Amino acid sequence: MTHLNLATKGQKLAAECLGTGFLLAAVVGSGIMAAKLSDGNVGLALLANAIATGAALTVLIQMFGPLSGAHFNPAVSLAFRLNGELSTRDFAAYCGVQVLGGCVGVLLANAMFDLPVLQASTTVRSSTGLWLSEVVATFGLVLTILLLVRFKPERVAAAVGLYITSAYWFTASTSFANPAVTIARSLTDTFAGIRAEDMAPFIAAQIVGATLAWWVAGLLTSNQGSRA
Amino acid sequence: MTHLNLATKGQKLAAECLGTGFLLAAVVGSGIMAAKLSDGNVGLALLANAIATGAALTVLIQMFGPLSGAHFNPAVSLAFRLNGELSTRDFAAYCGVQVLGGCVGVLLANAMFDLPVLQASTTVRSSTGLWLSEVVATFGLVLTILLLVRFKPERVAAAVGLYITSAYWFTASTSFANPAVTIARSLTDTFAGIRAEDMAPFIAAQIVGATLAWWVAGLLTSNQGSRA
Amino acid sequence: MTHLNLATKGQKLAAECLGTGFLLAAVVGSGIMAAKLSDGNVGLALLANAIATGAALTVLIQMFGPLSGAHFNPAVSLAFRLNGELSTRDFAAYCGVQVLGGCVGVLLANAMFDLPVLQASTTVRSSTGLWLSEVVATFGLVLTILLLVRFKPERVAAAVGLYITSAYWFTASTSFANPAVTIARSLTDTFAGIRAEDMAPFIAAQIVGATLAWWVAGLLTSNQGSRA
Amino acid sequence: MTHLNLATKGQKLAAECLGTGFLLAAVVGSGIMAAKLSDGNVGLALLANAIATGAALTVLIQMFGPLSGAHFNPAVSLAFRLNGELSTRDFAAYCGVQVLGGCVGVLLANAMFDLPVLQASTTVRSSTGLWLSEVVATFGLVLTILLLVRFKPERVAAAVGLYITSAYWFTASTSFANPAVTIARSLTDTFAGIRAEDMAPFIAAQIVGATLAWWVAGLLTSNQGSRA
Repeated sequence: MTHLNLATKGQKLAAECLGTGFLLAAVVGSGIMAAKLSDGNVGLALLANAIATGAALTVLIQMFGPLSGAHFNPAVSLAFRLNGELSTRDFAAYCGVQVLGGCVGVLLANAMFDLPVLQASTTVRSSTGLWLSEVVATFGLVLTILLLVRFKPERVAAAVGLYITSAYWFTASTSFANPAVTIARSLTDTFAGIRAEDMAPFIAAQIVGATLAWWVAGLLTSNQGSRA
Repeated sequence: MTHLNLATKGQKLAAECLGTGFLLAAVVGSGIMAAKLSDGNVGLALLANAIATGAALTVLIQMFGPLSGAHFNPAVSLAFRLNGELSTRDFAAYCGVQVLGGCVGVLLANAMFDLPVLQASTTVRSSTGLWLSEVVATFGLVLTILLLVRFKPERVAAAVGLYITSAYWFTASTSFANPAVTIARSLTDTFAGIRAEDMAPFIAAQIVGATLAWWVAGLLTSNQGSRA
Repeated sequence: MTHLNLATKGQKLAAECLGTGFLLAAVVGSGIMAAKLSDGNVGLALLANAIATGAALTVLIQMFGPLSGAHFNPAVSLAFRLNGELSTRDFAAYCGVQVLGGCVGVLLANAMFDLPVLQASTTVRSSTGLWLSEVVATFGLVLTILLLVRFKPERVAAAVGLYITSAYWFTASTSFANPAVTIARSLTDTFAGIRAEDMAPFIAAQIVGATLAWWVAGLLTSNQGSRA
Repeated sequence: MTHLNLATKGQKLAAECLGTGFLLAAVVGSGIMAAKLSDGNVGLALLANAIATGAALTVLIQMFGPLSGAHFNPAVSLAFRLNGELSTRDFAAYCGVQVLGGCVGVLLANAMFDLPVLQASTTVRSSTGLWLSEVVATFGLVLTILLLVRFKPERVAAAVGLYITSAYWFTASTSFANPAVTIARSLTDTFAGIRAEDMAPFIAAQIVGATLAWWVAGLLTSNQGSRA
């Protein structure tokens, strides 16, 4: 993440848009393939979906990290905004292109599998456990990023991929942990979908988790210098 | 593990507590999800559980290693106590917060899956093979850590994650290999649980394995300088 | 990829031939094994096939990268030709030995499993979604390589392995993304096969994806220096 | 592999013995667990077995590499003998402790799963395809090691683990690729076993593969300096 200053603002936004788009194509595409091939075995489908998502995320962060920081996630951008590393204007622009890229990525996944390009999810995802899960999932994701950016920046990409592969399994919500992902996944009525009316509490929980993680990271490293 | 001296004692204990908590949330949460989705296919459930646990462990050690050493395990702390790298007082404090964090992590996992928060496991885990397995599992874990801390400290996190993913499969006990984990897992009556009365021999076997590993590591490296 | 100048042209072509051969033996061999053992569970078969292919690819790129660049793929060689890093003559020679090595690798896989060595695939792979998938798959693969070669060359091997493991799942075509692989896979009537008459649109889509990726990589890095 | 000169001969032999023992405990133990939990689904069993073996191998090579080179395999030691990096006497001693350690590891796996400690395998493994598979598997393993030791020695451990995970799937024999492993696996009548009378052609094929790999590695790198 040391080349950030060389990229123009347009290149940064293009990187966030393209990266989030590819991430969603991977999340939704692998979900469709997994549901199609697993013949009702949801465990096997989630295993393939988790491995495909984690692997894609690691690669995408390595590709686009040197250009834009590779947030792909408004909750992550929020933490960097709270840290003062992103202006309010840049934060808004990042969020905008993340949502845009994510939605296009979902449409692309629908198209690759010869499904109607425009869909609305009917999958109900609503319970106290799910909302708690999103707080935990986003807290863990953002804390991972904040601590590793400080201690071992060259390991962030692999760590985020491993974290998400794990969190797909250890949270009841399968770890959306990302408002742009949440919005985009409402646009496919397949394995990875979420009903539009269930988005708001997910996003609220994600904001809570990210803010908590930013606060805890500050407490844990208040007296530590940066390694970079 | 070179930043240890910068963290305050409170930050170290917070890191051990938080890390062990997250580890147990990952172990127990992924176990619940796996059992729920695998429809009686225990092999598939253990595969998901092993991958999720190993991935989480790698990430957590990278996050908290620079703060506390990321033991998350009284058996590991024991080895560092035997090595003289931890005072008796710090060893006791580490063990205390590891058990505390682990128990809270299990309650959190129960809550995320909308299950009763307080539970007692009824899963019987008691046989000579299981106890031998715990000796082998902990011996291997602690030897991995002691040799890699000496030869390739930057590889410890990934090695421990890979070791545990493997040891879930190659030991009959699915490698608890950790007294804090053993105690905490008695608090969930799900896939990863262990009956309270079966804890003591598991913990005894783990102490034997850790002590043996410390002794063997000494023999193997008696005339070798440190690479650090 | 810094030792390239030390290898003779013969060693480079041998490396491309041997590496593509081993890649195809891995792709087709693991497909045969997976289909044989999975008892009609195509999801499980694809998971094994994806993990085996990604792991083999990472190792092969690490082995042969310092000799030939480890393209193993005319679409990748095309991007380096467009970049001016390969002469037209070398590009043609690379493509030739990649196809040759790939075909021999498939025959070897057939032989290892005691199947007829010479076969013709009868698997139909033809639809708009599949062709779109090949554009996306190859675009992502070549963009991964071009950006990582520039930003983090020592991570290319692992990134390509992870990318392909993921893309097997998130594209409808299971990501051939490689004209040499496409041609070679027409020579086995097993899990990984493709009918000879379906090859041409796959290869056309791959050339489109690779060219697009080369163009986008240029836009994203136009003002960035190389890290190497 | 740069600390080799610091270890005493006794420490080297102990490292080879212990490492090969742990490797076999992992191979056979995970095979027993996999067969037990997979309920007749051989594909799932092999997937777990392959992941557990590859992960264990990577960790063991990182642990013991700096002490003994972490061959754990007479075919690998043969290649280093041919390279002149091991004397005939040391080669013989390495082979001896590898076989000894491997056999003890198998007995340990049997014991951990509460099975009779002493067993003889009845699994028939005999066909032209299997022998060809062992040539290919060992050729690839030894070529991986020889090229990476030269070009990227710090990647050998992970590469060998990934190679074996893949080769379990892409060869018909599930890649024994190791005479010590072949002998030791005759001592368990479980998933990973091999009948004593089928060992000899496997070992012969492994020696052919290792010798071929040594010869090809020489051709590919004849004019290249070492990176170390």
